[in-house]
Amino acid sequence: MDFSLPRETQALLARFSDFLQREVYPLELAFLNQPFFSIEPELAKVRAHVKEAGLWAPQIPKAWGGMGLSLCDFALVSEVLGQSPLGHYLFGCQAPDAGNMEVLIRHGSDEQKERFLRPLARGEMRSCFAMTEPDTPGSNPTRLAARAVRDGDDYVIDAHKWFTSSADGAAFAVVMAVTDPKAPPHGRASMFIVPTDHPGYRRIRNIPLFGHAGEGYPSHSEVRFTACRVPATNRLGPEGAGFAIAQERLGPGRIHHCMRWIGICERSFQLMCQRATERKIGNTDDTETLANKQIIQAWIAEARAEIEAARLLVMRTAWRIDQAEHHGRDGFYDAQIDVSLIKFHVAGVMLRVVDRAVQVHGALGLTSDTVLSHFYSHERGARIYDGPDEVHKVAAARRLMKPRASH
Amino acid sequence: MDFSLPRETQALLARFSDFLQREVYPLELAFLNQPFFSIEPELAKVRAHVKEAGLWAPQIPKAWGGMGLSLCDFALVSEVLGQSPLGHYLFGCQAPDAGNMEVLIRHGSDEQKERFLRPLARGEMRSCFAMTEPDTPGSNPTRLAARAVRDGDDYVIDAHKWFTSSADGAAFAVVMAVTDPKAPPHGRASMFIVPTDHPGYRRIRNIPLFGHAGEGYPSHSEVRFTACRVPATNRLGPEGAGFAIAQERLGPGRIHHCMRWIGICERSFQLMCQRATERKIGNTDDTETLANKQIIQAWIAEARAEIEAARLLVMRTAWRIDQAEHHGRDGFYDAQIDVSLIKFHVAGVMLRVVDRAVQVHGALGLTSDTVLSHFYSHERGARIYDGPDEVHKVAAARRLMKPRASH
Amino acid sequence: MDFSLPRETQALLARFSDFLQREVYPLELAFLNQPFFSIEPELAKVRAHVKEAGLWAPQIPKAWGGMGLSLCDFALVSEVLGQSPLGHYLFGCQAPDAGNMEVLIRHGSDEQKERFLRPLARGEMRSCFAMTEPDTPGSNPTRLAARAVRDGDDYVIDAHKWFTSSADGAAFAVVMAVTDPKAPPHGRASMFIVPTDHPGYRRIRNIPLFGHAGEGYPSHSEVRFTACRVPATNRLGPEGAGFAIAQERLGPGRIHHCMRWIGICERSFQLMCQRATERKIGNTDDTETLANKQIIQAWIAEARAEIEAARLLVMRTAWRIDQAEHHGRDGFYDAQIDVSLIKFHVAGVMLRVVDRAVQVHGALGLTSDTVLSHFYSHERGARIYDGPDEVHKVAAARRLMKPRASH
Amino acid sequence: MDFSLPRETQALLARFSDFLQREVYPLELAFLNQPFFSIEPELAKVRAHVKEAGLWAPQIPKAWGGMGLSLCDFALVSEVLGQSPLGHYLFGCQAPDAGNMEVLIRHGSDEQKERFLRPLARGEMRSCFAMTEPDTPGSNPTRLAARAVRDGDDYVIDAHKWFTSSADGAAFAVVMAVTDPKAPPHGRASMFIVPTDHPGYRRIRNIPLFGHAGEGYPSHSEVRFTACRVPATNRLGPEGAGFAIAQERLGPGRIHHCMRWIGICERSFQLMCQRATERKIGNTDDTETLANKQIIQAWIAEARAEIEAARLLVMRTAWRIDQAEHHGRDGFYDAQIDVSLIKFHVAGVMLRVVDRAVQVHGALGLTSDTVLSHFYSHERGARIYDGPDEVHKVAAARRLMKPRASH
Repeated sequence: MDFSLPRETQALLARFSDFLQREVYPLELAFLNQPFFSIEPELAKVRAHVKEAGLWAPQIPKAWGGMGLSLCDFALVSEVLGQSPLGHYLFGCQAPDAGNMEVLIRHGSDEQKERFLRPLARGEMRSCFAMTEPDTPGSNPTRLAARAVRDGDDYVIDAHKWFTSSADGAAFAVVMAVTDPKAPPHGRASMFIVPTDHPGYRRIRNIPLFGHAGEGYPSHSEVRFTACRVPATNRLGPEGAGFAIAQERLGPGRIHHCMRWIGICERSFQLMCQRATERKIGNTDDTETLANKQIIQAWIAEARAEIEAARLLVMRTAWRIDQAEHHGRDGFYDAQIDVSLIKFHVAGVMLRVVDRAVQVHGALGLTSDTVLSHFYSHERGARIYDGPDEVHKVAAARRLMKPRASH
Repeated sequence: MDFSLPRETQALLARFSDFLQREVYPLELAFLNQPFFSIEPELAKVRAHVKEAGLWAPQIPKAWGGMGLSLCDFALVSEVLGQSPLGHYLFGCQAPDAGNMEVLIRHGSDEQKERFLRPLARGEMRSCFAMTEPDTPGSNPTRLAARAVRDGDDYVIDAHKWFTSSADGAAFAVVMAVTDPKAPPHGRASMFIVPTDHPGYRRIRNIPLFGHAGEGYPSHSEVRFTACRVPATNRLGPEGAGFAIAQERLGPGRIHHCMRWIGICERSFQLMCQRATERKIGNTDDTETLANKQIIQAWIAEARAEIEAARLLVMRTAWRIDQAEHHGRDGFYDAQIDVSLIKFHVAGVMLRVVDRAVQVHGALGLTSDTVLSHFYSHERGARIYDGPDEVHKVAAARRLMKPRASH
Repeated sequence: MDFSLPRETQALLARFSDFLQREVYPLELAFLNQPFFSIEPELAKVRAHVKEAGLWAPQIPKAWGGMGLSLCDFALVSEVLGQSPLGHYLFGCQAPDAGNMEVLIRHGSDEQKERFLRPLARGEMRSCFAMTEPDTPGSNPTRLAARAVRDGDDYVIDAHKWFTSSADGAAFAVVMAVTDPKAPPHGRASMFIVPTDHPGYRRIRNIPLFGHAGEGYPSHSEVRFTACRVPATNRLGPEGAGFAIAQERLGPGRIHHCMRWIGICERSFQLMCQRATERKIGNTDDTETLANKQIIQAWIAEARAEIEAARLLVMRTAWRIDQAEHHGRDGFYDAQIDVSLIKFHVAGVMLRVVDRAVQVHGALGLTSDTVLSHFYSHERGARIYDGPDEVHKVAAARRLMKPRASH
Repeated sequence: MDFSLPRETQALLARFSDFLQREVYPLELAFLNQPFFSIEPELAKVRAHVKEAGLWAPQIPKAWGGMGLSLCDFALVSEVLGQSPLGHYLFGCQAPDAGNMEVLIRHGSDEQKERFLRPLARGEMRSCFAMTEPDTPGSNPTRLAARAVRDGDDYVIDAHKWFTSSADGAAFAVVMAVTDPKAPPHGRASMFIVPTDHPGYRRIRNIPLFGHAGEGYPSHSEVRFTACRVPATNRLGPEGAGFAIAQERLGPGRIHHCMRWIGICERSFQLMCQRATERKIGNTDDTETLANKQIIQAWIAEARAEIEAARLLVMRTAWRIDQAEHHGRDGFYDAQIDVSLIKFHVAGVMLRVVDRAVQVHGALGLTSDTVLSHFYSHERGARIYDGPDEVHKVAAARRLMKPRASH
């Protein structure tokens, strides 16, 4: 076992980290408090700097303008970027675009790649991924209600979706719909690319979360496809391959999310320590701070242990996947149990750390004067999206209890 | 021991509950999604209906237009009203006005009562309470930075406050400031009434919480008093009595809050059960719902046990206070330990129940299509305001470990 | 609502409490460290004193030599007695004898009462209750393996039981066995009285718990009935009524257990506070004790809140049952949900409090120099016997989610 | 990063694991249920087999008859051995002997090595380590009460110690006593070797833990040194170096313990899964087992995630220490924070996993028919010995909050 990072990796991470400190943190207050479209021009400037610095799209092959990092290396980068809610967006590796790029690279036709992938990878357009439905459980694909019916050279799509993240401002949507309701459950659906200016597509609203509908990239929309006719060339991948591709898409996404959450842990931990050492609470002298208080100390030590352990678990998962792929196996299939374990475990660690960091900040922790309140509310979804805790626990346990499972 | 409620109390609670179902719940979606001022006229109509129904200001003596309920009876009403975030506001018993009314009734001069209490009790104006400061810990009165200096028949107030709840739209503020920095710690401060159109008073901003500054009643402001000169007749209570009055104010407030939180628990519990029984998750048939799942069942049973136990603990505290006051003692002084225990215990129970109700709702639980996301974010403060958990735990433990503490 | 205890109840509890302090606590170290049979003569003397003091068998009707307390009053007594592991035994209300007495009083024939109940109620013999089986889940009666086959005027019993508490030294066993395997599940079994000197009955071993088989009253045995022939007059209650009677037996038992656990909480809490205030940890002076440490303070406050809330929940359950029975209803049927809730909730509170009290005692907490290590190991079963947590949670949740459940 | 184990390490671990399955597990029931001295001859035979297999004393240099493994490799071995409570004892690496061997190797005089180390390393005698005192907190060295007064060529030792593990049957004790009460706190004490047949040394009793005094190796004694005169040549290391050596001794010990606890986790996890898949609970068919139950599944998944993450954290700590030592630094000093974090974190993970494994086993989990009850009670000390959780949390937090702490 070797827990060291190669010197080049360390240097790379330092570059991301420096950039973050210098150009990203100063924009956070604006991001937390102002409408997205009002700060978009400012963000565009920083994205240009990122490109100049050669740090754009770290997860994408160089052929498409990215850095072509391995899963392990990108995982470490994702942790650094996750320390700011603006990180992934500014470096061109934000969900859901990053997932859509991956799918396009693996399954897109040449035409789809030229038309959709190229501008997406350059950050010249945004996209969204319309899978979740309000009335069917996301964790059970057999219940998907959306339908795409073949009609000559076209498909006609009828679908009601929500939590279509970043639809507001997206140039196209990737939508999942059932093409053959009688096929075996996991072969029923297919994916389609639908430009958002296409007839039959409508963004109904941005869904208010915690009282706030938001706008642009960090919003989540309810969308409707009504008799939305697209040419068959807009199908992404083979007919019936929708679930397989979606699963494939989720694999790396979960690693990225988990390391992003570790980044959130780190940021929250730093803020918690800083606040504890600065907040004076004594009566007469100024040496008594929250940092002297045992309850706070216990939280800090517990957080540190949980964060370190969780990070190692994610990194080993990424490493196992890289290794398996390197040996020609499907790494994400091999690591199914690990991926389920980190999905719920890291989400839980993150939300506990954030909650305690909020508590250490007192009333300030609830305000948008700190990024913590943003983490507290907007990252609550971590225990829900991409499979709720409960689904991952059940799935992992079933596999773990199979006789052969030599985990 | 007798755990029964008298028939009249039950009937009274039913009247509140019916009103809530009929006139308050239908307004919730608007409250969760629209600016406060835009729905204020609608709310005013409901308040008028409340008055017609004889349910206005249950906590205030009949002489001032209220119902004059005992602490125990109002605690039970507070639970019912707490089931909606609009409850207390619509029935004229919302913080911080309720607290200000209590203080004015006990300590206001006749002139103050006429000018400030009467319209407040009628719901014709709103008020705010400016105590918390950004740079001093709320839990330690000796660190208060605000100053009020006597100058002839006036006081000149300089203060920087925040989390002055409901300042936006308030007609006057009650502000706490140090009048004698050399007095013993708990005798340093005094309270003053400052109309918000008074020179020297300025509302700087509504503090964005979870990304949203809000407006009107449910907002929290940063305010500044700059060389703000008020006549000595605006002092509320004797000089140096600020802390004593603030403590007095907090006592009943904590009971009200705790029972409001129990109301939030009940609402969240109902929503959780309803969602569990309605959400279909099975593959082929429609009988498999979340309600069949053991993990959900465990949450429901655990929530029920915790809520029931917590309510009883609050009610016994209220009962002990009522009893002590009935026998001429200071009930809140007697019940200091109990009040500290329920403050942190019930806040914890509530946030656990809300969190699980959110989880059962999946993505929906994060949206403002349900009241749960509002509870999740806006009630996080329950573990912070009126003394954070940690302060109450330490205070209670010290008292409990004193030899005589025959608790 | 009225949370007060009548003066007579208070006086009664004080008598139990005084007796405990004076005569029971001094015997604890011997109980914790010596074989049961070696201290039995000493215990017999104290039992005689209990009888002289008129405090014997508080739960049993006066006609049978007890005090005839109501469920509520006995619940309060049970809390007091629970503070010592010797309490219930010395006052004649120990499991499983107390349960057997109840069953005999309600269902015993006159002959059975004379022969078994009378000496049992006087503490002149002990008994055991053989229900749990090693290979079938206690929570599912339909899987019971024991058989009793009618043969003329006799039954022939074949059964393998374990966790037959207190079988070592018992004069008779009450055994549950299936008499009609084809009957509806809850009508299959019956109960029988089998004297332990009867042919075919054999105590195989005392089961070692935590490395220690123990002996006498506080031990748990594995027993076997092999072609054990008893006259039909030894059947306790009607044929097929075994489960109904067992359920009946469990109802009050759970209230008694829960209040006994509250007693354990109280004792652990006292010891925790005492240790915290006495244990010096500072470097140079003697004023620094564990009691000054915030982590310990937090545990003490949390424990106090949880204990108080849990006790109220149990007492309300007892009160509801007393009320229902008073009005001619089956109180335990009415209070099924409440009983399930307190069963798992109070067991959990107790084990948390005990665990923290152990931690405050450091190494001492693991030794038999304190009663805490006994609580830690021997009360772990509280989450298992009489229905494990999980079974009660599922049962309660199902009832709570039924539409009518107007809990 | 490289999470793979070299093939030789894997092969080595497999040898330990096979041996354990074949020769150790079959002895466990006897160990759990019989007096130690009665099974000692049987254990001696297995130790001989261990030596024959070349697996004896893996942590000790080859020069002293061991295998000379690195800290990392021994950590992995310790996990394997930890799966049985007999593991470390049978392979010659049991506490406290392993620690005493380390100290003798580093600080023993040639004479001490010949007389004490050689037979100890061969398993021909046992030893104990007398540090903890009943009346002074183990976590604060300045309060140590034991005294060793220089008198000519001798020291005269007066000390009252307890939790002197394995004193029953030990040939010598290493005792810590203050030699210069006026020295700076960490330079006050020294260590001495005292043969247990030496005048003035007395083993008072084996301390009953959980009701059981035990005997021999797995017991813990109270011992007293009364005017116990030993020659100065029995001093182990320089005068005043007692604490430094004790700290040194604790470092590797904590790694060994943590990996032993991971072994306990693994064993408990296996037993939990096995029980869940085997225990039938359904009414009519035999396919319904505990393994189908969501609550159990959640425990299994949570346990797996926690165990994996915790193991990685310990291994990285061991790796960091090995690396630092390799580069000539004091690895344990460098890794102080890490060692504190794993000490409390892994102990907590272990006790949670064990507790849930017990619960899955129901009544069986409390008996000595399974190793789980042994883990439940005898490993509760993990949160206490070698520094209680609270002390490690506070120590780690203080270091983490220091500005430079670039953890």
